[in-house]
Amino acid sequence: MAAPASPTLTTSPRDFEHSDLYKGVYAYVKDYMSRYDISHDMSHIIRVLAIAKHIHIEELAANPWKKLHKQAIILAALLHDVGDKKYLQPGEDAETMIVDVLQKHGCPPRFVSKVALIVEHVSYSSEVKRPQLVKAIVAAHPELAIVQDADRLDAIGAVGIARCFAFGGAKAGDRGLGGCIDHFSDKLERIEGMMKTETGKMMAAERTQRLIEFRGWWEEEHGLVS
Amino acid sequence: MAAPASPTLTTSPRDFEHSDLYKGVYAYVKDYMSRYDISHDMSHIIRVLAIAKHIHIEELAANPWKKLHKQAIILAALLHDVGDKKYLQPGEDAETMIVDVLQKHGCPPRFVSKVALIVEHVSYSSEVKRPQLVKAIVAAHPELAIVQDADRLDAIGAVGIARCFAFGGAKAGDRGLGGCIDHFSDKLERIEGMMKTETGKMMAAERTQRLIEFRGWWEEEHGLVS
Repeated sequence: MAAPASPTLTTSPRDFEHSDLYKGVYAYVKDYMSRYDISHDMSHIIRVLAIAKHIHIEELAANPWKKLHKQAIILAALLHDVGDKKYLQPGEDAETMIVDVLQKHGCPPRFVSKVALIVEHVSYSSEVKRPQLVKAIVAAHPELAIVQDADRLDAIGAVGIARCFAFGGAKAGDRGLGGCIDHFSDKLERIEGMMKTETGKMMAAERTQRLIEFRGWWEEEHGLVS
Repeated sequence: MAAPASPTLTTSPRDFEHSDLYKGVYAYVKDYMSRYDISHDMSHIIRVLAIAKHIHIEELAANPWKKLHKQAIILAALLHDVGDKKYLQPGEDAETMIVDVLQKHGCPPRFVSKVALIVEHVSYSSEVKRPQLVKAIVAAHPELAIVQDADRLDAIGAVGIARCFAFGGAKAGDRGLGGCIDHFSDKLERIEGMMKTETGKMMAAERTQRLIEFRGWWEEEHGLVS
Protein backbone atom coordinates (compact mmCIF):
# COMPACT_ATOMS: atom_id res chain seq x y z
CA MET A 1 0.00 0.00 0.00
CA ALA A 2 1.13 3.55 -0.71
CA ALA A 3 1.88 5.82 2.24
CA PRO A 4 -1.03 8.14 3.12
CA ALA A 5 -0.97 11.41 1.19
CA SER A 6 0.57 14.26 3.13
CA PRO A 7 -1.80 16.96 4.41
CA THR A 8 0.94 19.57 4.83
CA LEU A 9 1.93 22.44 2.56
CA THR A 10 5.54 21.29 2.27
CA THR A 11 4.90 18.62 -0.35
CA SER A 12 5.83 19.20 -3.99
CA PRO A 13 3.23 20.89 -6.21
CA ARG A 14 2.31 17.65 -7.96
CA ASP A 15 1.94 15.81 -4.68
CA PHE A 16 -0.18 18.63 -3.31
CA GLU A 17 -3.11 17.82 -5.58
CA HIS A 18 -3.09 14.30 -4.16
CA SER A 19 -2.90 15.48 -0.55
CA ASP A 20 -5.78 15.12 1.89
CA LEU A 21 -5.77 18.91 2.33
CA TYR A 22 -6.32 19.60 -1.38
CA LYS A 23 -8.82 16.80 -1.83
CA GLY A 24 -10.71 17.75 1.33
CA VAL A 25 -10.97 21.43 0.39
CA TYR A 26 -11.88 20.55 -3.22
CA ALA A 27 -14.73 18.27 -2.09
CA TYR A 28 -15.96 20.91 0.38
CA VAL A 29 -15.98 23.63 -2.30
CA LYS A 30 -17.70 21.37 -4.83
CA ASP A 31 -20.49 20.67 -2.36
CA TYR A 32 -20.68 24.30 -1.25
CA MET A 33 -20.90 25.74 -4.78
CA SER A 34 -23.80 23.45 -5.66
CA ARG A 35 -26.06 25.86 -3.74
CA TYR A 36 -25.23 28.71 -6.14
CA ASP A 37 -26.63 29.27 -9.64
CA ILE A 38 -24.72 28.39 -12.82
CA SER A 39 -22.94 31.77 -12.88
CA HIS A 40 -21.02 30.77 -9.75
CA ASP A 41 -20.76 26.98 -9.88
CA MET A 42 -17.86 24.55 -9.60
CA SER A 43 -16.95 25.11 -13.25
CA HIS A 44 -16.23 28.77 -12.35
CA ILE A 45 -13.89 27.58 -9.58
CA ILE A 46 -12.16 25.14 -11.93
CA ARG A 47 -11.63 27.89 -14.53
CA VAL A 48 -10.31 30.37 -11.94
CA LEU A 49 -7.96 27.71 -10.60
CA ALA A 50 -6.68 26.97 -14.12
CA ILE A 51 -6.19 30.69 -14.91
CA ALA A 52 -4.44 31.27 -11.57
CA LYS A 53 -2.03 28.40 -12.23
CA HIS A 54 -1.37 29.74 -15.73
CA ILE A 55 -0.64 33.26 -14.44
CA HIS A 56 1.60 31.80 -11.73
CA ILE A 57 3.68 29.93 -14.31
CA GLU A 58 3.94 32.97 -16.62
CA GLU A 59 4.82 35.34 -13.78
CA LEU A 60 7.52 32.99 -12.52
CA ALA A 61 8.93 32.62 -16.03
CA ALA A 62 9.19 36.41 -16.33
CA ASN A 63 10.47 36.93 -12.75
CA PRO A 64 12.17 33.71 -11.61
CA TRP A 65 13.27 35.35 -8.36
CA LYS A 66 9.71 36.22 -7.32
CA LYS A 67 8.52 34.42 -4.18
CA LEU A 68 5.05 33.02 -4.72
CA HIS A 69 3.43 30.35 -2.61
CA LYS A 70 1.77 28.12 -5.17
CA GLN A 71 -0.25 26.12 -2.69
CA ALA A 72 -1.70 29.29 -1.17
CA ILE A 73 -2.74 30.36 -4.69
CA ILE A 74 -4.43 27.01 -5.28
CA LEU A 75 -6.26 26.96 -1.96
CA ALA A 76 -7.37 30.60 -2.26
CA ALA A 77 -8.56 30.04 -5.85
CA LEU A 78 -10.58 27.03 -4.68
CA LEU A 79 -12.08 28.86 -1.70
CA HIS A 80 -12.48 32.36 -3.15
CA ASP A 81 -16.30 32.25 -3.48
CA VAL A 82 -17.05 30.51 -0.18
CA GLY A 83 -19.02 33.02 1.84
CA ASP A 84 -19.52 35.39 -1.14
CA LYS A 85 -21.72 38.28 0.04
CA LYS A 86 -24.10 37.89 -2.91
CA TYR A 87 -25.08 34.43 -1.66
CA LEU A 88 -24.31 34.42 2.09
CA GLN A 89 -27.12 33.07 4.25
CA PRO A 90 -28.19 34.47 7.63
CA GLY A 91 -25.92 33.34 10.45
CA GLU A 92 -23.05 32.44 8.12
CA ASP A 93 -19.65 34.07 8.52
CA ALA A 94 -17.29 33.82 5.57
CA GLU A 95 -14.02 33.91 7.51
CA THR A 96 -15.12 31.22 9.96
CA MET A 97 -16.13 28.96 7.09
CA ILE A 98 -12.73 29.34 5.39
CA VAL A 99 -10.70 28.87 8.58
CA ASP A 100 -12.76 25.87 9.68
CA VAL A 101 -12.42 23.95 6.43
CA LEU A 102 -8.67 24.60 6.19
CA GLN A 103 -8.06 23.56 9.80
CA LYS A 104 -10.29 20.51 9.48
CA HIS A 105 -8.21 19.22 6.58
CA GLY A 106 -4.87 19.79 8.30
CA CYS A 107 -3.69 23.10 6.86
CA PRO A 108 -0.80 24.45 8.99
CA PRO A 109 -1.97 27.44 11.13
CA ARG A 110 0.34 29.98 9.45
CA PHE A 111 -1.09 29.17 6.03
CA VAL A 112 -4.65 29.15 7.32
CA SER A 113 -4.31 32.88 8.10
CA LYS A 114 -2.57 33.63 4.81
CA VAL A 115 -5.16 31.83 2.66
CA ALA A 116 -8.07 33.32 4.65
CA LEU A 117 -6.62 36.82 4.24
CA ILE A 118 -6.29 36.32 0.47
CA VAL A 119 -9.81 34.90 0.11
CA GLU A 120 -11.27 37.77 2.12
CA HIS A 121 -9.78 40.35 -0.26
CA VAL A 122 -10.35 38.80 -3.69
CA SER A 123 -13.60 40.64 -4.35
CA TYR A 124 -13.76 43.54 -6.80
CA SER A 125 -16.20 45.54 -4.68
CA SER A 126 -14.07 45.25 -1.55
CA GLU A 127 -11.09 46.58 -3.54
CA VAL A 128 -13.13 49.49 -4.93
CA LYS A 129 -14.16 50.29 -1.35
CA ARG A 130 -10.67 50.03 0.21
CA PRO A 131 -7.99 50.18 -2.51
CA GLN A 132 -5.15 51.12 -0.14
CA LEU A 133 -5.86 48.16 2.12
CA VAL A 134 -5.82 45.74 -0.81
CA LYS A 135 -2.58 47.30 -2.11
CA ALA A 136 -0.92 46.68 1.25
CA ILE A 137 -2.09 43.07 1.36
CA VAL A 138 -0.87 42.45 -2.19
CA ALA A 139 2.55 43.82 -1.19
CA ALA A 140 2.74 41.32 1.67
CA HIS A 141 0.95 38.47 -0.14
CA PRO A 142 1.52 38.78 -3.92
CA GLU A 143 -0.52 35.59 -4.39
CA LEU A 144 -3.62 37.77 -3.89
CA ALA A 145 -2.89 39.62 -7.15
CA ILE A 146 -2.89 36.32 -9.04
CA VAL A 147 -6.15 35.02 -7.57
CA GLN A 148 -7.82 38.41 -8.09
CA ASP A 149 -6.71 38.57 -11.72
CA ALA A 150 -7.87 34.99 -12.34
CA ASP A 151 -11.30 35.60 -10.80
CA ARG A 152 -11.75 38.85 -12.75
CA LEU A 153 -10.68 37.29 -16.04
CA ASP A 154 -13.53 34.81 -15.59
CA ALA A 155 -15.92 37.79 -15.35
CA ILE A 156 -14.98 39.12 -18.81
CA GLY A 157 -14.67 37.70 -22.33
CA ALA A 158 -17.16 35.14 -23.62
CA VAL A 159 -17.28 33.37 -20.26
CA GLY A 160 -17.93 36.65 -18.46
CA ILE A 161 -20.74 37.50 -20.89
CA ALA A 162 -22.29 34.08 -20.33
CA ARG A 163 -22.02 34.41 -16.54
CA CYS A 164 -23.42 37.94 -16.55
CA PHE A 165 -26.63 36.89 -18.32
CA ALA A 166 -26.92 33.62 -16.36
CA PHE A 167 -26.71 35.59 -13.10
CA GLY A 168 -29.35 38.01 -14.44
CA GLY A 169 -31.62 35.09 -15.28
CA ALA A 170 -31.08 33.38 -11.92
CA LYS A 171 -31.51 36.50 -9.82
CA ALA A 172 -34.39 37.74 -12.02
CA GLY A 173 -33.71 41.41 -11.50
CA ASP A 174 -36.26 43.97 -12.63
CA ARG A 175 -33.84 45.37 -15.17
CA GLY A 176 -33.95 42.40 -17.54
CA LEU A 177 -31.30 41.69 -20.16
CA GLY A 178 -30.78 45.44 -20.56
CA GLY A 179 -29.69 45.59 -16.93
CA CYS A 180 -27.05 42.93 -17.68
CA ILE A 181 -25.76 44.94 -20.65
CA ASP A 182 -25.56 48.04 -18.43
CA HIS A 183 -23.34 45.97 -16.12
CA PHE A 184 -20.79 45.78 -18.97
CA SER A 185 -19.96 49.50 -18.85
CA ASP A 186 -20.74 49.85 -15.11
CA LYS A 187 -18.20 47.20 -14.13
CA LEU A 188 -16.99 44.58 -16.61
CA GLU A 189 -15.28 46.95 -19.05
CA ARG A 190 -13.45 48.58 -16.11
CA ILE A 191 -11.91 45.34 -14.86
CA GLU A 192 -9.00 45.52 -17.31
CA GLY A 193 -7.78 48.70 -15.61
CA MET A 194 -7.54 46.90 -12.27
CA MET A 195 -5.47 43.92 -13.40
CA LYS A 196 -2.25 43.52 -11.45
CA THR A 197 -0.11 40.90 -13.21
CA GLU A 198 1.39 41.34 -16.68
CA THR A 199 -0.17 38.05 -17.81
CA GLY A 200 -3.54 39.16 -16.46
CA LYS A 201 -3.30 42.51 -18.26
CA MET A 202 -2.66 40.84 -21.61
CA MET A 203 -5.48 38.35 -21.19
CA ALA A 204 -7.84 41.08 -19.99
CA ALA A 205 -7.13 43.26 -23.03
CA GLU A 206 -8.35 40.54 -25.39
CA ARG A 207 -11.37 39.64 -23.27
CA THR A 208 -12.38 43.29 -22.89
CA GLN A 209 -12.36 43.65 -26.69
CA ARG A 210 -14.85 40.77 -26.75
CA LEU A 211 -17.15 42.60 -24.33
CA ILE A 212 -17.02 45.72 -26.48
CA GLU A 213 -17.64 43.80 -29.70
CA PHE A 214 -20.57 41.95 -28.13
CA ARG A 215 -22.09 45.22 -26.90
CA GLY A 216 -21.77 46.62 -30.43
CA TRP A 217 -23.72 43.63 -31.79
CA TRP A 218 -26.35 44.11 -29.09
CA GLU A 219 -26.79 47.77 -29.96
CA GLU A 220 -27.00 47.04 -33.68
CA GLU A 221 -29.67 44.39 -33.06
CA HIS A 222 -31.66 46.87 -30.97
CA GLY A 223 -31.60 49.46 -33.77
CA LEU A 224 -35.03 48.27 -34.97
CA VAL A 225 -36.65 48.81 -31.57
CA SER A 226 -37.73 52.43 -31.33
CA MET B 1 -63.77 64.65 -27.55
CA ALA B 2 -62.30 62.31 -30.15
CA ALA B 3 -64.39 59.38 -31.33
CA PRO B 4 -63.54 56.11 -29.52
CA ALA B 5 -60.73 54.14 -31.16
CA SER B 6 -61.97 51.41 -33.45
CA PRO B 7 -61.54 47.82 -32.24
CA THR B 8 -61.82 46.31 -35.73
CA LEU B 9 -59.11 45.11 -38.09
CA THR B 10 -60.20 47.39 -40.92
CA THR B 11 -58.57 50.55 -39.57
CA SER B 12 -55.34 51.87 -41.10
CA PRO B 13 -52.06 50.50 -39.72
CA ARG B 14 -51.30 53.67 -37.78
CA ASP B 15 -54.77 53.77 -36.27
CA PHE B 16 -54.50 50.10 -35.34
CA GLU B 17 -51.91 50.76 -32.64
CA HIS B 18 -54.36 53.17 -31.05
CA SER B 19 -57.28 50.75 -31.24
CA ASP B 20 -58.81 49.11 -28.18
CA LEU B 21 -57.96 45.71 -29.70
CA TYR B 22 -54.22 46.47 -29.96
CA LYS B 23 -54.06 48.21 -26.61
CA GLY B 24 -56.07 45.47 -24.88
CA VAL B 25 -53.92 42.66 -26.29
CA TYR B 26 -50.71 44.58 -25.56
CA ALA B 27 -51.70 45.12 -21.91
CA TYR B 28 -52.71 41.45 -21.57
CA VAL B 29 -49.39 40.24 -23.01
CA LYS B 30 -47.38 42.64 -20.84
CA ASP B 31 -49.07 41.29 -17.72
CA TYR B 32 -48.82 37.69 -18.91
CA MET B 33 -45.09 37.86 -19.75
CA SER B 34 -44.26 39.21 -16.30
CA ARG B 35 -44.56 35.63 -15.01
CA TYR B 36 -41.68 34.47 -17.23
CA ASP B 37 -37.96 34.97 -16.63
CA ILE B 38 -35.90 37.66 -18.39
CA SER B 39 -35.22 35.42 -21.40
CA HIS B 40 -38.91 35.61 -22.33
CA ASP B 41 -40.12 38.96 -21.02
CA MET B 42 -41.98 41.86 -22.61
CA SER B 43 -38.75 43.19 -24.11
CA HIS B 44 -38.54 39.95 -26.16
CA ILE B 45 -42.09 40.58 -27.43
CA ILE B 46 -41.26 44.20 -28.28
CA ARG B 47 -38.15 43.11 -30.22
CA VAL B 48 -40.03 40.37 -32.11
CA LEU B 49 -42.77 42.85 -32.97
CA ALA B 50 -40.18 45.35 -34.26
CA ILE B 51 -38.38 42.69 -36.33
CA ALA B 52 -41.69 41.38 -37.73
CA LYS B 53 -42.72 44.89 -38.81
CA HIS B 54 -39.30 45.41 -40.40
CA ILE B 55 -39.49 42.13 -42.34
CA HIS B 56 -43.05 42.99 -43.42
CA ILE B 57 -41.90 46.33 -44.86
CA GLU B 58 -38.90 44.79 -46.63
CA GLU B 59 -40.91 41.89 -48.05
CA LEU B 60 -43.58 44.26 -49.37
CA ALA B 61 -40.92 46.49 -50.92
CA ALA B 62 -39.46 43.48 -52.76
CA ASN B 63 -42.87 41.98 -53.66
CA PRO B 64 -45.45 44.78 -53.73
CA TRP B 65 -48.14 42.41 -55.00
CA LYS B 66 -47.80 40.08 -52.01
CA LYS B 67 -50.90 39.91 -49.81
CA LEU B 68 -49.92 40.18 -46.16
CA HIS B 69 -52.26 41.06 -43.33
CA LYS B 70 -50.22 43.46 -41.24
CA GLN B 71 -52.57 43.47 -38.28
CA ALA B 72 -52.49 39.67 -38.08
CA ILE B 73 -48.67 39.87 -38.04
CA ILE B 74 -48.78 42.40 -35.20
CA LEU B 75 -51.28 40.47 -33.11
CA ALA B 76 -49.49 37.15 -33.64
CA ALA B 77 -46.12 38.70 -32.79
CA LEU B 78 -47.60 40.11 -29.58
CA LEU B 79 -49.27 36.84 -28.60
CA HIS B 80 -46.69 34.32 -29.86
CA ASP B 81 -45.38 33.31 -26.41
CA VAL B 82 -48.72 33.17 -24.60
CA GLY B 83 -49.17 29.54 -23.61
CA ASP B 84 -45.55 28.61 -24.50
CA LYS B 85 -45.04 24.95 -23.56
CA LYS B 86 -41.85 25.72 -21.62
CA TYR B 87 -43.86 27.81 -19.15
CA LEU B 88 -47.46 26.51 -19.37
CA GLN B 89 -49.08 25.85 -16.00
CA PRO B 90 -51.36 22.91 -15.19
CA GLY B 91 -54.91 23.46 -16.41
CA GLU B 92 -53.90 26.13 -18.93
CA ASP B 93 -54.66 25.70 -22.62
CA ALA B 94 -52.73 27.90 -25.03
CA GLU B 95 -55.36 28.11 -27.77
CA THR B 96 -58.17 29.01 -25.36
CA MET B 97 -56.04 31.80 -23.88
CA ILE B 98 -55.33 33.29 -27.32
CA VAL B 99 -58.92 33.04 -28.55
CA ASP B 100 -60.33 34.46 -25.32
CA VAL B 101 -58.14 37.54 -25.25
CA LEU B 102 -58.74 38.32 -28.94
CA GLN B 103 -62.52 37.92 -28.59
CA LYS B 104 -62.62 39.92 -25.38
CA HIS B 105 -61.01 42.89 -27.09
CA GLY B 106 -63.30 42.79 -30.12
CA CYS B 107 -61.23 40.96 -32.73
CA PRO B 108 -63.52 39.88 -35.63
CA PRO B 109 -64.11 36.06 -35.52
CA ARG B 110 -62.40 35.36 -38.88
CA PHE B 111 -59.19 36.98 -37.67
CA VAL B 112 -59.36 35.31 -34.29
CA SER B 113 -58.93 31.94 -36.04
CA LYS B 114 -56.19 33.23 -38.33
CA VAL B 115 -54.14 34.78 -35.53
CA ALA B 116 -54.63 31.75 -33.26
CA LEU B 117 -53.49 29.42 -36.06
CA ILE B 118 -50.36 31.51 -36.63
CA VAL B 119 -49.53 31.71 -32.91
CA GLU B 120 -49.98 27.96 -32.53
CA HIS B 121 -47.40 27.25 -35.24
CA VAL B 122 -44.66 29.79 -34.52
CA SER B 123 -42.55 27.43 -32.42
CA TYR B 124 -39.34 25.93 -33.77
CA SER B 125 -39.91 22.56 -32.13
CA SER B 126 -43.42 22.20 -33.54
CA GLU B 127 -42.01 22.88 -37.02
CA VAL B 128 -39.23 20.32 -36.55
CA LYS B 129 -41.90 17.81 -35.50
CA ARG B 130 -44.36 18.54 -38.34
CA PRO B 131 -42.61 20.41 -41.17
CA GLN B 132 -45.21 19.57 -43.83
CA LEU B 133 -48.03 20.91 -41.69
CA VAL B 134 -46.21 24.19 -41.10
CA LYS B 135 -45.42 24.47 -44.81
CA ALA B 136 -49.11 24.16 -45.64
CA ILE B 137 -50.09 26.79 -43.09
CA VAL B 138 -47.42 29.19 -44.38
CA ALA B 139 -48.82 28.75 -47.91
CA ALA B 140 -52.28 29.75 -46.69
CA HIS B 141 -51.09 32.32 -44.13
CA PRO B 142 -47.75 33.81 -45.25
CA GLU B 143 -47.82 36.04 -42.15
CA LEU B 144 -46.68 32.96 -40.18
CA ALA B 145 -43.33 32.99 -42.02
CA ILE B 146 -42.72 36.57 -40.90
CA VAL B 147 -43.58 35.98 -37.23
CA GLN B 148 -41.51 32.77 -37.19
CA ASP B 149 -38.50 34.51 -38.71
CA ALA B 150 -38.81 37.41 -36.26
CA ASP B 151 -39.04 35.13 -33.23
CA ARG B 152 -36.09 33.03 -34.40
CA LEU B 153 -33.93 36.07 -35.14
CA ASP B 154 -34.37 37.04 -31.49
CA ALA B 155 -32.94 33.63 -30.52
CA ILE B 156 -29.63 34.24 -32.35
CA GLY B 157 -27.02 37.00 -32.49
CA ALA B 158 -26.01 38.89 -29.35
CA VAL B 159 -29.60 38.97 -28.09
CA GLY B 160 -29.95 35.23 -28.63
CA ILE B 161 -26.70 34.57 -26.75
CA ALA B 162 -27.92 36.74 -23.86
CA ARG B 163 -31.30 34.98 -23.78
CA CYS B 164 -29.73 31.52 -23.97
CA PHE B 165 -27.60 32.08 -20.85
CA ALA B 166 -30.37 33.96 -19.01
CA PHE B 167 -32.71 31.01 -19.60
CA GLY B 168 -29.98 28.64 -18.39
CA GLY B 169 -29.56 30.72 -15.23
CA ALA B 170 -33.30 30.96 -14.60
CA LYS B 171 -34.05 27.30 -15.22
CA ALA B 172 -30.86 26.20 -13.42
CA GLY B 173 -30.30 23.09 -15.47
CA ASP B 174 -27.74 20.55 -14.37
CA ARG B 175 -25.65 21.20 -17.45
CA GLY B 176 -24.47 24.66 -16.43
CA LEU B 177 -23.06 27.22 -18.85
CA GLY B 178 -21.60 24.38 -20.92
CA GLY B 179 -25.14 23.12 -21.51
CA CYS B 180 -26.06 26.55 -22.88
CA ILE B 181 -23.08 26.50 -25.25
CA ASP B 182 -24.11 23.02 -26.44
CA HIS B 183 -27.49 24.56 -27.31
CA PHE B 184 -25.69 26.74 -29.88
CA SER B 185 -24.81 23.81 -32.15
CA ASP B 186 -27.84 21.71 -31.12
CA LYS B 187 -30.30 24.40 -32.19
CA LEU B 188 -29.26 28.04 -32.52
CA GLU B 189 -26.75 27.59 -35.34
CA ARG B 190 -29.37 25.61 -37.30
CA ILE B 191 -31.99 28.34 -37.20
CA GLU B 192 -30.52 30.17 -40.20
CA GLY B 193 -31.33 27.17 -42.40
CA MET B 194 -35.02 27.39 -41.46
CA MET B 195 -35.55 31.07 -42.24
CA LYS B 196 -38.35 31.67 -44.74
CA THR B 197 -38.21 35.32 -45.81
CA GLU B 198 -35.35 36.87 -47.79
CA THR B 199 -34.99 39.62 -45.17
CA GLY B 200 -34.90 37.01 -42.41
CA LYS B 201 -32.25 34.99 -44.24
CA MET B 202 -29.95 38.00 -44.55
CA MET B 203 -30.38 39.01 -40.91
CA ALA B 204 -29.89 35.42 -39.76
CA ALA B 205 -26.63 35.06 -41.68
CA GLU B 206 -25.07 37.95 -39.75
CA ARG B 207 -26.44 36.83 -36.39
CA THR B 208 -25.29 33.25 -36.93
CA GLN B 209 -21.75 34.52 -37.57
CA ARG B 210 -21.96 36.16 -34.15
CA LEU B 211 -22.91 32.85 -32.52
CA ILE B 212 -19.97 31.13 -34.20
CA GLU B 213 -17.53 33.89 -33.25
CA PHE B 214 -18.75 33.83 -29.65
CA ARG B 215 -18.37 30.06 -29.47
CA GLY B 216 -14.80 30.43 -30.78
CA TRP B 217 -14.02 32.88 -27.95
CA TRP B 218 -15.58 30.49 -25.45
CA GLU B 219 -13.45 27.59 -26.66
CA GLU B 220 -10.29 29.68 -26.64
CA GLU B 221 -10.99 30.78 -23.06
CA HIS B 222 -11.51 27.16 -22.03
CA GLY B 223 -8.15 26.14 -23.49
CA LEU B 224 -6.51 26.49 -20.07
CA VAL B 225 -8.96 24.09 -18.41
CA SER B 226 -7.69 20.56 -18.92
